[in-house]
Amino acid sequence: MTNVAILGYGVVGSGVSEVIRRNRENIRIKAGDEISVKYILDIRDFPDSPDRDLIVFDPDVIFNDPEVSIVVETIGGTGAAYEFTMRALKSRKHVVTSNKELVAAYGPELLQTARENGVNYLFEASVGGGIPIIRPLNQCLAANEISSITGILNGTTNYILTQMKKKGEDYTNALREAQKNGYAEANPAADIDGFDACRKIAILSSIAYNEFVDYRGIYTEGIKNITIEDMVYADEMGAVIKLVALSRRENDRIFARVSPVVLPKSSPLANVEDEFNAIVVKGDAVGDAMFYGRGAGKLPTASAVVADIIDIVRHPGDIGRNNWVRNGNNNLVDIDDTETRMFVRMKAKDPSRAKEMAQNAFGGVEFVRTGKINDENEIAFTTENMKEGRFKRILSDVRNSEAISDITSVLRIFEEK
Amino acid sequence: MTNVAILGYGVVGSGVSEVIRRNRENIRIKAGDEISVKYILDIRDFPDSPDRDLIVFDPDVIFNDPEVSIVVETIGGTGAAYEFTMRALKSRKHVVTSNKELVAAYGPELLQTARENGVNYLFEASVGGGIPIIRPLNQCLAANEISSITGILNGTTNYILTQMKKKGEDYTNALREAQKNGYAEANPAADIDGFDACRKIAILSSIAYNEFVDYRGIYTEGIKNITIEDMVYADEMGAVIKLVALSRRENDRIFARVSPVVLPKSSPLANVEDEFNAIVVKGDAVGDAMFYGRGAGKLPTASAVVADIIDIVRHPGDIGRNNWVRNGNNNLVDIDDTETRMFVRMKAKDPSRAKEMAQNAFGGVEFVRTGKINDENEIAFTTENMKEGRFKRILSDVRNSEAISDITSVLRIFEEK
Repeated sequence: MTNVAILGYGVVGSGVSEVIRRNRENIRIKAGDEISVKYILDIRDFPDSPDRDLIVFDPDVIFNDPEVSIVVETIGGTGAAYEFTMRALKSRKHVVTSNKELVAAYGPELLQTARENGVNYLFEASVGGGIPIIRPLNQCLAANEISSITGILNGTTNYILTQMKKKGEDYTNALREAQKNGYAEANPAADIDGFDACRKIAILSSIAYNEFVDYRGIYTEGIKNITIEDMVYADEMGAVIKLVALSRRENDRIFARVSPVVLPKSSPLANVEDEFNAIVVKGDAVGDAMFYGRGAGKLPTASAVVADIIDIVRHPGDIGRNNWVRNGNNNLVDIDDTETRMFVRMKAKDPSRAKEMAQNAFGGVEFVRTGKINDENEIAFTTENMKEGRFKRILSDVRNSEAISDITSVLRIFEEK
Repeated sequence: MTNVAILGYGVVGSGVSEVIRRNRENIRIKAGDEISVKYILDIRDFPDSPDRDLIVFDPDVIFNDPEVSIVVETIGGTGAAYEFTMRALKSRKHVVTSNKELVAAYGPELLQTARENGVNYLFEASVGGGIPIIRPLNQCLAANEISSITGILNGTTNYILTQMKKKGEDYTNALREAQKNGYAEANPAADIDGFDACRKIAILSSIAYNEFVDYRGIYTEGIKNITIEDMVYADEMGAVIKLVALSRRENDRIFARVSPVVLPKSSPLANVEDEFNAIVVKGDAVGDAMFYGRGAGKLPTASAVVADIIDIVRHPGDIGRNNWVRNGNNNLVDIDDTETRMFVRMKAKDPSRAKEMAQNAFGGVEFVRTGKINDENEIAFTTENMKEGRFKRILSDVRNSEAISDITSVLRIFEEK
């Protein structure tokens, strides 16, 4: 019998307890041992919960009990979660978490502490909810040199963008509906500004490239400025607009970015709709492999947490799978030094002069027209591939031109490399 | 240092050697030990190969060498492959294979022999080529009760169906092109008749439901009879035609089937084109998770073989993950007792009488019309959900009706359960 303690009886924590209870027999077969929840730490009590008798308020009960070999941290954030995780590891208890903030911020320290104490720190549930992605990267694709990871890693923003596209709703209404349906939180900043996806791509990159990628160095842009008109243009170009997190190995450095992109419909990520997530991994042997499913939610996330628990029960001695060393941000390529094609929309005072000016300034632009937007002063075009730094300098010149009254949208165009 | 021997230097065997050589350092990090190929068994020699010095003709060299701890079987088939696998396991060497015929036919015996000898028999590469699917089922989704598996498991047939749809080529030409481009073998029967997909769904089902599913009991139908006209009708119904392998838990039995189906475009499998494979797994906690990638090919398949090798190096003591007991075919539901909607096309001598007759015979059919097929005598309709046995009895009555001259197509309609 393996005894587990859960820290934090919120959505994920209660889901973990539910999955362990519901699928006890199947889990016993897969783990080779029975798994049981002995304690749940919370500051609230839950008189109506089936787990009410397991609730404890004193963390020492857990850390001092030698029968508890695995601790599940589902508190979230980097405060108590950090402190309790450290204490659990130093008490030589394995820790499993769904807490992407903590892994992205303190992964190197926590992994080192785990190694020093002969235990594991596993976090499959921190990325992609129930979608198996971290174990596949670490194990199933272990024979590959991974060259890139591209993902729709945030369900909230994907749900909002899908609603906008399908129903023609503007961003504000789509966000409100997402909040009403439980796909967005009351304070949705972490999702819509791209911070959540940023932490996730940092974690995946650290695993794929065998070196710690600090999320604080990753260029991150959210979806607040996306409009229905942008989507109409994207459709005209045979594309959709998605919030895409990507990272690529470029020589001995890493390029990572989170931003909305114009994504060709031929991309397997273009069909990922609603709250679903998907991750495409490119390896030198496997080619493209894609993993798709629900990126959040109580039971999907709990499913991933319990998979980590089962892994530890089967392989208690397999520690030190990840060895992240903090090295500053200097393994990341500066966004200005990365290349992309851009999509630009602007309002012109003098459309024909504005077009000529854009053509001259950027060189080789392609104009995009759509019959669905009837505004003589609207100009839209795509540039050729160029360094972002150069693009910005040219754009700032263009912005000052008298032929232009406003630059409405600037969006990166996603291209396979 | 872990020494590996490869049996059979064909496409996959040489790929395994190539991947181990090329990604030596990355593999060492992931496995925690260096992995090296010591011998390659073949009856040919390969004077121009970088592996020429490793070739041996005598299997005893391998089985008697205590330094070889892992044997890779990439011979294929169930003859020498069976004999050598048994000998390797009895020599207490772990065996890794890509050989789906052998796993599907002798899985229970080989797994038992492995257990008895304290070693592992792993076969990630037997299904889905490089797509991680067996390890995810066994480990990542271990906390779930799996209720169904649905997959496009054969790249050859998917390539042919995609060519037919995109280029309007008939089956014979599309097959010829697939052969020319290396996507179909000279003797393509195993692929186009569905046998390959059948073995793969049998293997996946055995893992997902923790009991051996014998492929010989699975209803299997290939794609030979699919026509462009069927695809035109499918398109009219907002669907595509795909060869889908599926299995579902139905109470204490298992329903498994391989057949072409009319698949709604809203299904994530509908967008899987060309030679790609994809597998959707439905679990009670995770919901739907999809795995997508190249289902065949030298390096993708080798990538999966090497992942199994790395797993064994990391977890030499983790044996007995699968425990399959041969129990006859009686855990499978008879195809006649399974329910489905059907799509039927027929040529009528008297169209209005034929329609009335179909309506009366099947009850509640919906007629499908397409402007692209101008044949007054053509009638197409879909039935309601009904047992296949009942459908067949009614269809045989209809076939004998004087109003009908021929039944052109009968296709199952895929519906989510």
